[in-house]
Amino acid sequence: MAKGDLLIIGGNEDKSENKLILSRFAALCRNRQGPIGILTTATGLPEEVGSEYEKLFKSLHGIKPILFHLDSREKAEDSSLPEQLSSLSGLFMTGGDQLRLTSILGGTSFYKHLHKQWNNGLIIGGTSAGAAVMSRLMIISSKLFEKEEISVLEMGSGFGFLEDVIIDQHFSQRDRFSRLMRAIALNPQIIGIGIDENTAIWVHNEGEQFEVIGEYNVSIFDGKTSTYIDIAENKGNMTISDIRFHTLGAGAVFNLHTREMIIS
Amino acid sequence: MAKGDLLIIGGNEDKSENKLILSRFAALCRNRQGPIGILTTATGLPEEVGSEYEKLFKSLHGIKPILFHLDSREKAEDSSLPEQLSSLSGLFMTGGDQLRLTSILGGTSFYKHLHKQWNNGLIIGGTSAGAAVMSRLMIISSKLFEKEEISVLEMGSGFGFLEDVIIDQHFSQRDRFSRLMRAIALNPQIIGIGIDENTAIWVHNEGEQFEVIGEYNVSIFDGKTSTYIDIAENKGNMTISDIRFHTLGAGAVFNLHTREMIIS
Repeated sequence: MAKGDLLIIGGNEDKSENKLILSRFAALCRNRQGPIGILTTATGLPEEVGSEYEKLFKSLHGIKPILFHLDSREKAEDSSLPEQLSSLSGLFMTGGDQLRLTSILGGTSFYKHLHKQWNNGLIIGGTSAGAAVMSRLMIISSKLFEKEEISVLEMGSGFGFLEDVIIDQHFSQRDRFSRLMRAIALNPQIIGIGIDENTAIWVHNEGEQFEVIGEYNVSIFDGKTSTYIDIAENKGNMTISDIRFHTLGAGAVFNLHTREMIIS
Repeated sequence: MAKGDLLIIGGNEDKSENKLILSRFAALCRNRQGPIGILTTATGLPEEVGSEYEKLFKSLHGIKPILFHLDSREKAEDSSLPEQLSSLSGLFMTGGDQLRLTSILGGTSFYKHLHKQWNNGLIIGGTSAGAAVMSRLMIISSKLFEKEEISVLEMGSGFGFLEDVIIDQHFSQRDRFSRLMRAIALNPQIIGIGIDENTAIWVHNEGEQFEVIGEYNVSIFDGKTSTYIDIAENKGNMTISDIRFHTLGAGAVFNLHTREMIIS
């Protein structure tokens, strides 16, 4: 079996009009058997957020979804989870705080079986925090200490569905350019992918390529080409030269292995 | 004589603490004879803004500045201007609206003699609107028409002290990434230079290179390397691939001819 596709959403996806992105997730899941699972671990309002997506996916996918309200490591060890996971066509991770996702689920039975099912083709979608968590290395938060004039970027391990990539979400809307730059300066081997709100990347061919869908843009910063990074010497306003940059609108396709846009 | 240096400031430069950028302008001017001129044409509050810079430059430069309150094309033809301009060590252009600068001064006697003196070494500084106007091609404004889902970028002619460059100011602070991208898509031969607030580029060696000074960063997007731009077909969220990108902190030096960072 091939690994499942990923649908990685920059947050605030349309839920009331054409529902373009959520419809795409439902359509991908319809290629397989079984309901969609909704994982609410990231949010502090699991009932409210879960029930909104439950309604949406019931209408878009046709099958009543299964809710996973896993708000403790104990619940993530429940012995019924492996079978529930194996019944799903796809799993959708809501927004909230990505650190809740990794700290509550990392290394648990749920986490292990999620990876197992993903390796067997489970489609995985996520928005906002559910997007940030997709990569091996993830941004947790960035903090600026005004007095000390130091900005600190907290990073940690994500769920690892993508290697050599860092996802940042709400990209244009929350002006996250400089924090993604910092993430690249600290990890120049990676590709930084900034996804705007109501915009998503559909990763397919076992992680080889993605297509942009939705309203705005996806910004790609490839750190591998950089010729100079002074972050080790310069704690303030750093310098990075020769980043390869792409801004992709809907329909654009990018190859994550060759790190090039596919011009069709 | 060599062309004068340019000090191009992203707006909101520090005026009360170390005054790093304005001190640099004063220091550059001290290498020549004569007072600093202050051009208030961009602002709707010429007395207020002019008097603030008058005090600052008097204290930083030591010589009482000359104010140029030119708020009409008629005033810009005044016969005393050529001699006044020839007496200056430098001219500083305040913030405001860059379209006032070009529409009031473009092609006037003041404009012609400003260029003449610049070719003879006059130092030229400008902040915000006074920065935008430095290049041959300048951004006037960007407007998003929500209903029609079309964004329009108004561009026009600047003062032309720099070729093949577009300056955008208040870059990180006003989230001007997408408008600079659009400017590049429309003019891929140019280098887009986004200058943060309280940050400046000091252009020297007759426009060959610049050094970054100040608090934050300068973002450089070189459109020349781009391999794909779909702006002609796609009025919405456009795609541009293979932009060469650099983010430069204080002290970084960039060669505008070779379009490469100079690593010393």
